[in-house]
Amino acid sequence: MAEEEFRVTPWEVSGKVDYDKLRREFGTGVIDDGMRERIKRICGELHPMLSRGFFFSQRDLKLVLDDYEAKKGFFLYTGRGPSGPMHIGHLVPLLFTKWLQDKFKVNLYIEITDDEKFLFKRELSWDDVGKHSIDNILDIAAVGFDPERTFIFRDSEYIGNAYQLMLKVAKKITFSTTRAVFGFENETNIGAIFYPAYQVVPTFFEKKRCLIPNAIDQDPYWRIQRDIAESLGYLKTAAIHSKFIPPLQGISGKMSASAPESAIWLTDDEKAVKKKIMKYAFSGGQPTVEEHRRLGGNTEIDVPYQWLSILFEPSDKKLRQIHDDYASGKLLTGEIKQILVDKINEFLKEHRERKKKAEKEIERYTRNGKLATEMWERTYE
Amino acid sequence: MAEEEFRVTPWEVSGKVDYDKLRREFGTGVIDDGMRERIKRICGELHPMLSRGFFFSQRDLKLVLDDYEAKKGFFLYTGRGPSGPMHIGHLVPLLFTKWLQDKFKVNLYIEITDDEKFLFKRELSWDDVGKHSIDNILDIAAVGFDPERTFIFRDSEYIGNAYQLMLKVAKKITFSTTRAVFGFENETNIGAIFYPAYQVVPTFFEKKRCLIPNAIDQDPYWRIQRDIAESLGYLKTAAIHSKFIPPLQGISGKMSASAPESAIWLTDDEKAVKKKIMKYAFSGGQPTVEEHRRLGGNTEIDVPYQWLSILFEPSDKKLRQIHDDYASGKLLTGEIKQILVDKINEFLKEHRERKKKAEKEIERYTRNGKLATEMWERTYE
Repeated sequence: MAEEEFRVTPWEVSGKVDYDKLRREFGTGVIDDGMRERIKRICGELHPMLSRGFFFSQRDLKLVLDDYEAKKGFFLYTGRGPSGPMHIGHLVPLLFTKWLQDKFKVNLYIEITDDEKFLFKRELSWDDVGKHSIDNILDIAAVGFDPERTFIFRDSEYIGNAYQLMLKVAKKITFSTTRAVFGFENETNIGAIFYPAYQVVPTFFEKKRCLIPNAIDQDPYWRIQRDIAESLGYLKTAAIHSKFIPPLQGISGKMSASAPESAIWLTDDEKAVKKKIMKYAFSGGQPTVEEHRRLGGNTEIDVPYQWLSILFEPSDKKLRQIHDDYASGKLLTGEIKQILVDKINEFLKEHRERKKKAEKEIERYTRNGKLATEMWERTYE
Repeated sequence: MAEEEFRVTPWEVSGKVDYDKLRREFGTGVIDDGMRERIKRICGELHPMLSRGFFFSQRDLKLVLDDYEAKKGFFLYTGRGPSGPMHIGHLVPLLFTKWLQDKFKVNLYIEITDDEKFLFKRELSWDDVGKHSIDNILDIAAVGFDPERTFIFRDSEYIGNAYQLMLKVAKKITFSTTRAVFGFENETNIGAIFYPAYQVVPTFFEKKRCLIPNAIDQDPYWRIQRDIAESLGYLKTAAIHSKFIPPLQGISGKMSASAPESAIWLTDDEKAVKKKIMKYAFSGGQPTVEEHRRLGGNTEIDVPYQWLSILFEPSDKKLRQIHDDYASGKLLTGEIKQILVDKINEFLKEHRERKKKAEKEIERYTRNGKLATEMWERTYE
């Protein structure tokens, strides 16, 4: 594959993505300096994922900010498919979503798509999906969302409340459309074909505008929502899109659950993290120390640097120092990797402590917090 | 269309059906004298719809009787799509089902497919489906099922209990299959495509064998169930098939809700019934009284005679008398029609009284009777 070739669909990301080209192809808007300034003015600061351009594209984000400033409000929606344990890449949009919730004080709906994963993964049993759901919900709760403003729900458990609205959504979507958007085939099972209707439903949980933080490959899903929302009396959803976290092995494609060595799992212990980063993390450094001292490292393709930039080094000043030291050859490959190892292990240690604590609080998100209580009393029509 | 041509699919019945040929095409079994004798021995009598061959075909009925006699038991399942008011044709399988329940003392599940009708009828709103559901349930309850052994449920209300099992069913059915069986197309909406999974679920409500009384055109639906049941740990459903009630206008096709004049509605008053029968009911009589006296009427094609035979004259003796008198020319067209008018009006009067009474008892079927209570406490996996 030539360097400039890449492929981004909801079910495949390959090659080195030209994000600007992709954004133009998808027809989404940029996040420009003006928009960043406006968010900074409202929020008092900018999340590094915004200031560093990791979240780089949007649909109707201007309208979301307009609604917010006009006191109409908005709400957040994201989700997780419980097909297995979670890795660090899965947490990235959630961490950004938490920041948005903290700053805007808005409701957040997190859909656990147990039905989807059961239907799409041939080998996955319902029991396994159930176990992953419980574990994933704890990992999500550990992110620290506002328990009074957050509702985490499993599709199979909330179906009684959501089904009527789901029928109205489903009636607007043909098999042809799902074939074009999701790549469904004649041999796709009928549950999988229906599932996209459920994915749309939470965008209608409130009459306010919905904002979905997600990686850009998920955008096609929301085009269906935007096509049908107004005919059902709701607003088109807005979205804010991130780039992909590079897999350990190099900056092409995205971190994948089906290639375990490409990711750091939330359950990886300190030794495992160190081993993976040291052994697999693609380096932009030079083959020998001497050459590295002379030529310096290439931060553009250096996965440890990219991970620090996306997630693990929030301080711009420190990141700049690491950048300059690495580019000048002062910082060696083993050293930048060790910085990342320490950061990840610190992050994972804290995450696991929060996850442990979340066990006691989980029902506030799923059952009896303010928003959760309201949601279980409601039937959507 | 030549007389011998006919067409029977779940969505179309046209022409004069050759039931024996159809049975062979569908690959269903006969109901022969031996089977009728066996049912008579168990039940003490035979329902006229059995003895007169209106129910004429079956799948695995022998196994149902075996299970019953071996004290393993079985259960009944039927349904109603609440797309509008009900006519007499809709009651026919229900009346026979009531007889089966009375004789065998078994549980009966009646699915009100509000989701299906909403999804398949473009012009039907959710509100309308709701109104028809409530009214249809009263008409069904008026049939007089055992309120402790009968559970009448609306799909949209029971979905919370049924969804997990529905997913397991759906995972086994591809779009190709539904296209072949139900005639789905690329422009079919994704809710309609998923719906057949719900129709299968009640056949798994018990680990016993399910027996479905229905018109023969519905048989293809159950072939899917029979294909997947055992892989999910359940039994293939059995079925007992009826012929079609002829529409008023003649013995081709079937009574259709989309041709109001072809049916007698449960809400038709005495005058309306008389007018419809006198004006529209296709007669096997002769053009003039003189010819009729001389040649006699043809009961084979006479709709009033057929309706008396199928539903309105339970006495074999009286029916035989009517047959002979009509065939000999003693009974005139106007007279046999008047016999039917009186029978229908008597039936409808009693039905409306039972429907009125059912208003007070309806919750025993839907919520708090013995079976209903059990069903709401259960989640199917």
